[in-house]
Amino acid sequence: VGSRAEAEQTVEDITIEQTIEFPPDLVSDSEIRDRLTGRPESLQEVRPNLHQAVISFAVEVAGVEFTQLLNVAFGNISLKRSIRLVRLDLSDGVLRSFRGPRFGRRGLRSLVEAPTGPLYAAALKPLGLSPRQIAELAYRFAMEGIHLIKDDHGLADQPFCRFDERVSLAAEAVRRANGETGRKCLYVPNVTAPLSELRRRTRFAVSAGAGGLLIAPGLVGFDAMREIADDDSVALPILCHPAFLGTFVINADQGLSQFALFGQIPRLAGADACIFPHYGGRFPISPGECKDLAEGTAVPMAHLRPIFPVPAGGMRKERVPEIVDFYGSEVILLIGADLQRCGEKRS
Amino acid sequence: VGSRAEAEQTVEDITIEQTIEFPPDLVSDSEIRDRLTGRPESLQEVRPNLHQAVISFAVEVAGVEFTQLLNVAFGNISLKRSIRLVRLDLSDGVLRSFRGPRFGRRGLRSLVEAPTGPLYAAALKPLGLSPRQIAELAYRFAMEGIHLIKDDHGLADQPFCRFDERVSLAAEAVRRANGETGRKCLYVPNVTAPLSELRRRTRFAVSAGAGGLLIAPGLVGFDAMREIADDDSVALPILCHPAFLGTFVINADQGLSQFALFGQIPRLAGADACIFPHYGGRFPISPGECKDLAEGTAVPMAHLRPIFPVPAGGMRKERVPEIVDFYGSEVILLIGADLQRCGEKRS
Repeated sequence: VGSRAEAEQTVEDITIEQTIEFPPDLVSDSEIRDRLTGRPESLQEVRPNLHQAVISFAVEVAGVEFTQLLNVAFGNISLKRSIRLVRLDLSDGVLRSFRGPRFGRRGLRSLVEAPTGPLYAAALKPLGLSPRQIAELAYRFAMEGIHLIKDDHGLADQPFCRFDERVSLAAEAVRRANGETGRKCLYVPNVTAPLSELRRRTRFAVSAGAGGLLIAPGLVGFDAMREIADDDSVALPILCHPAFLGTFVINADQGLSQFALFGQIPRLAGADACIFPHYGGRFPISPGECKDLAEGTAVPMAHLRPIFPVPAGGMRKERVPEIVDFYGSEVILLIGADLQRCGEKRS
Repeated sequence: VGSRAEAEQTVEDITIEQTIEFPPDLVSDSEIRDRLTGRPESLQEVRPNLHQAVISFAVEVAGVEFTQLLNVAFGNISLKRSIRLVRLDLSDGVLRSFRGPRFGRRGLRSLVEAPTGPLYAAALKPLGLSPRQIAELAYRFAMEGIHLIKDDHGLADQPFCRFDERVSLAAEAVRRANGETGRKCLYVPNVTAPLSELRRRTRFAVSAGAGGLLIAPGLVGFDAMREIADDDSVALPILCHPAFLGTFVINADQGLSQFALFGQIPRLAGADACIFPHYGGRFPISPGECKDLAEGTAVPMAHLRPIFPVPAGGMRKERVPEIVDFYGSEVILLIGADLQRCGEKRS
């Protein structure tokens, strides 16, 4: 953001701030300066006073570690104004160090035996229901033909709804419904928790027969999500929740793009689907930003599978045709409270 | 941000979005609605169109888990505009579930045997130096009387500067200098890494005789920092680095305050000192924000010790008196490249 000269200065700042972080005149070793600082590739004015730059960084600086990759991409410059990370273009060599989504769109479709068409997800709400009530609701959703039934992300291990009891009962309820319908609905408990509990709850969910895991990387870190996604003893699809991450995307000229934060980075972290607010619901997001995000879930990234965008946040059932029209059929529709509104009307 | 009526609406949104996340009219159980939704306590206009609200949440919702506490404090509302989390007021019951900083200001002072006055820290830069060069620089800083010598946060485990070799040599160099000076300078390697490596490098650093650990919670998650800080087999002071967290603080009407993000939350996560950009350096931050941040490092929080603010980001040596005047003597001054500038002039 700013004039051409300001943009050029910003680009130079970024090449140094994200790498050697040192006044270039003090670096006597010219090899360090030339090889390790970022390299400006191009600079285009996309709107008056808004420039888009391509900057490349040496693999030996960013390395093959997820944390250092994020650090070089947006570590210190997160502290500066008017800089937005729009997209990551990673070399095949870097991408090879990531396993990526275990299931992706196609794998998730085969788990729920729905080869075409949009998938449907529902949330177990409101917070305050007992494990038994949660299980009843899960059973009802599964009987209705929902593909994925997820815990509300606010369900942790509260005294009124303990994790172990909830997950046992809800997994059992969905299994029972699947037995009756012959379908393959997945129950997706929220395992977001302090790290030791994140691992314990993940193991518990696996043994209780959960069909997937809900994780909020804004609360546990993207690498903790990656570690669970990569774990062969877990091997469940991962649903990414955006809690605590919103600030990164909310101002269009700062932070990270939806494309990067909810498309590319969750794929690096092994998520198979990413929840985000759809426009026209409770959250401020534009149609263009939603499109951008959906593109990030499928942009070619070597062997990293495309994942599902999961628009959510105050969706009403009557908007389903419009949403499918907008995203196409490669989408999971997360309809929360409104499903219960309809359910209540019918009963 | 907005009119009084808008502010009231926002407060109501927050009380629901962060808890039951459900249209209140669909919650038939009035006990859930009344007990679990957030409670507006007060609403004050602090400037025209800027309101400050106090909202309280039930302990049974936010619980005693760090991740869920952050989720209730700022999870979904991070996705909404014009809401800023200014401060956390946690009950003693909640605070009791956190160990907090192991050393804090007083503990860190006794480690470096400097009971009064500002402490000095230096960064090992630029990226690109070999382990041997890093160790030489560390030795020089230690001989000069610096109290804490930290890795640059961009130093991970790159091919040109492997972690194990760097940490062994730098720890040894600082030990040697301490033997000559009789002082207790601490070498603080950067252990920020994917989780399994974060743990391995932490153990390696402990066994190599490091004096502290540098961790960027924006890259590894605040709970990963807490886990290491709480680990009695580590028991080293923790220096918090702000990489990837800047977006949260950069707009004054959104995200989190410096007070909360760089003061209160690192204390919950067990950090003993928190690095942030001082005003007038390379990063945009105002004197008022710096003051706010420093207050967050010491505001009473039950048994949680006050920690050091560590202003940094392009500091020059000649600003030392001004900075000490601004923060008082309870501060660690991190002077990066400029120390080398002076060093070079002297040699």
